[in-house]
Amino acid sequence: MPITKSVRNLEPYTPGEQPKLKNVIKLNTNENPYPPTPKCRAVLAAFDLDKLRKYPDPVFIELRKAIAKLNKCKIENVFVGNGSDEILALSAKAFVEDNGIIGSLNPSYSLYKTIAAIRDVKWLGVKEAGLEEAKAKANKCDLFLWTNPNAPTGEFTRPGKIAAFAKSFPGTLLIDEAYADFACDNAMRLATAPENKNTIVMRTFSKSYSLAGLRVGYAVGPVDLIEALYKIKDSYNVDAIAQAIALEAIKDQRWMKANAAKIKKTRAYLEKKLALMGWDVIPSQSNFVFARPPKGNAEEIFLSLKKDNIFVRYFKGKETGDRLRITIGTQEQIETLIKKLK
Amino acid sequence: MPITKSVRNLEPYTPGEQPKLKNVIKLNTNENPYPPTPKCRAVLAAFDLDKLRKYPDPVFIELRKAIAKLNKCKIENVFVGNGSDEILALSAKAFVEDNGIIGSLNPSYSLYKTIAAIRDVKWLGVKEAGLEEAKAKANKCDLFLWTNPNAPTGEFTRPGKIAAFAKSFPGTLLIDEAYADFACDNAMRLATAPENKNTIVMRTFSKSYSLAGLRVGYAVGPVDLIEALYKIKDSYNVDAIAQAIALEAIKDQRWMKANAAKIKKTRAYLEKKLALMGWDVIPSQSNFVFARPPKGNAEEIFLSLKKDNIFVRYFKGKETGDRLRITIGTQEQIETLIKKLK
Repeated sequence: MPITKSVRNLEPYTPGEQPKLKNVIKLNTNENPYPPTPKCRAVLAAFDLDKLRKYPDPVFIELRKAIAKLNKCKIENVFVGNGSDEILALSAKAFVEDNGIIGSLNPSYSLYKTIAAIRDVKWLGVKEAGLEEAKAKANKCDLFLWTNPNAPTGEFTRPGKIAAFAKSFPGTLLIDEAYADFACDNAMRLATAPENKNTIVMRTFSKSYSLAGLRVGYAVGPVDLIEALYKIKDSYNVDAIAQAIALEAIKDQRWMKANAAKIKKTRAYLEKKLALMGWDVIPSQSNFVFARPPKGNAEEIFLSLKKDNIFVRYFKGKETGDRLRITIGTQEQIETLIKKLK
Repeated sequence: MPITKSVRNLEPYTPGEQPKLKNVIKLNTNENPYPPTPKCRAVLAAFDLDKLRKYPDPVFIELRKAIAKLNKCKIENVFVGNGSDEILALSAKAFVEDNGIIGSLNPSYSLYKTIAAIRDVKWLGVKEAGLEEAKAKANKCDLFLWTNPNAPTGEFTRPGKIAAFAKSFPGTLLIDEAYADFACDNAMRLATAPENKNTIVMRTFSKSYSLAGLRVGYAVGPVDLIEALYKIKDSYNVDAIAQAIALEAIKDQRWMKANAAKIKKTRAYLEKKLALMGWDVIPSQSNFVFARPPKGNAEEIFLSLKKDNIFVRYFKGKETGDRLRITIGTQEQIETLIKKLK
């Protein structure tokens, strides 16, 4: 057979729906409802076409300098990927042997299971990685993917608890902080600590920077782990325009933070309204909430909202099937949603 | 060890130098000396920032429609990658078992060896894959990467000869046609033939379309092989801007062909001049020539040109070390080169 056995048997990841319709309220893929910094407009308008003719900087020095400055580390500690997705796939290759195991919280970002399947290794779900019993289980993993705040729950784990886990974890710990800019704290200091040997923190431009369409994510960690990612990446994995726009976006912290503040305000509003309507709402530190309707009829509500052109996310399954994950849209969008739910 | 054994032992690929200096004549990475279609300018200037906020089309329907139209196939036959590099890496995963072998011509694009090393499988170099003896050797491979025109030699193999090889080849044949637009013919008809079961043709926007900075390549082949690539790719592997620009570029065939024609004319000029100076020039069907100076002192000339800010490519090694690979620049650049060589 020309196609490998593991690929033939693979159940691919299903990204959230991207409806083609106009006038849709799209609360299903944790996109930012506000546009990226208007400075991106100037970058695009002034972009030198001659730069497209040539290969991009294979190691994105300018962008890494800005990332290093923001996170108070050296550029040697920074890797940039074609979205966080690429960093996850490369980590599965660099840090997991052929007979290894990739672990993550359960429930968590459902892509992790697919990442393990593509790497053709076992996936192991751990309920609460901070607890002693679960820790013994997690310690079998070569690579542990800890999303914080977690998805789809929105729950936040204190960095101190993650640090305690990291200390005795024998493999590589990758903390996926896609939603960190919407949280009260983050674990970047674990990645940049001089004594750190096994912890990588990953961030993305897709959420707080409103650049999901661009595909840029980055990882910060110990030099030897970061170097391993460089060794196996495609020669030119981040294109010239993406490098230029991400650079402009990361420099405009004020714009990003203003949008994150608006989202957090609307999140508090949505949480309160849902609770008043009898929903069970997990307190979120993210740009979405994961909530259970009073009757647990999440799928029914999901389908009914879809008919009204409001897209939220529904994950079948024992752990997730009685809840909806609702991305925080604009205040107006969320008010419309609340009206429909009533 | 947190880093896998195969990655620790890996010798990474070295891309051609990207000098930061101004006023450099850059003939070392087979970039197009002419800019991409000016229509890209309009795409960039008018690009809706709101599109960046949202995830891009994960399966790039519009771009695939244009690619399918150009190559007279269905969109189901088309895959698009973050550069051809990504397609190569995915093919190594989808079509090669853990104990498998990746083969290619030898010499050929030196990245192929690295692709095999990253996939942690053997690489096998074949001198002339069309010959019966070599064919038996090549037939051991799960995946055979046939660059045509070949790099760094520029040699062109007739599609009929490749078809004869494909017919009895038990694995997947990927014909890397990065330079096809500079050649007299191509093998796309093998990929789109209804009876084709094992042949993929890969093209890139990096060379003839002058978009190396953008990272877009595509593959055309049988539906089941193409589907295997979709199953294991990152969810959103080609960003929204890259999709839009590549679409515009592929629609402007006239611009691309006019640039390719200029390059072919300058190629003939360079080949003639080098031959007159006693160089051994392999007739090229590509946007570069691979030539041996009369004394075989290729490295010396490479270093001397570099001092004069003229960058060409030198590959150490038995097969390649007495030659230089010279990318076809503008007519003016090549005339300057000739003067220096004299």
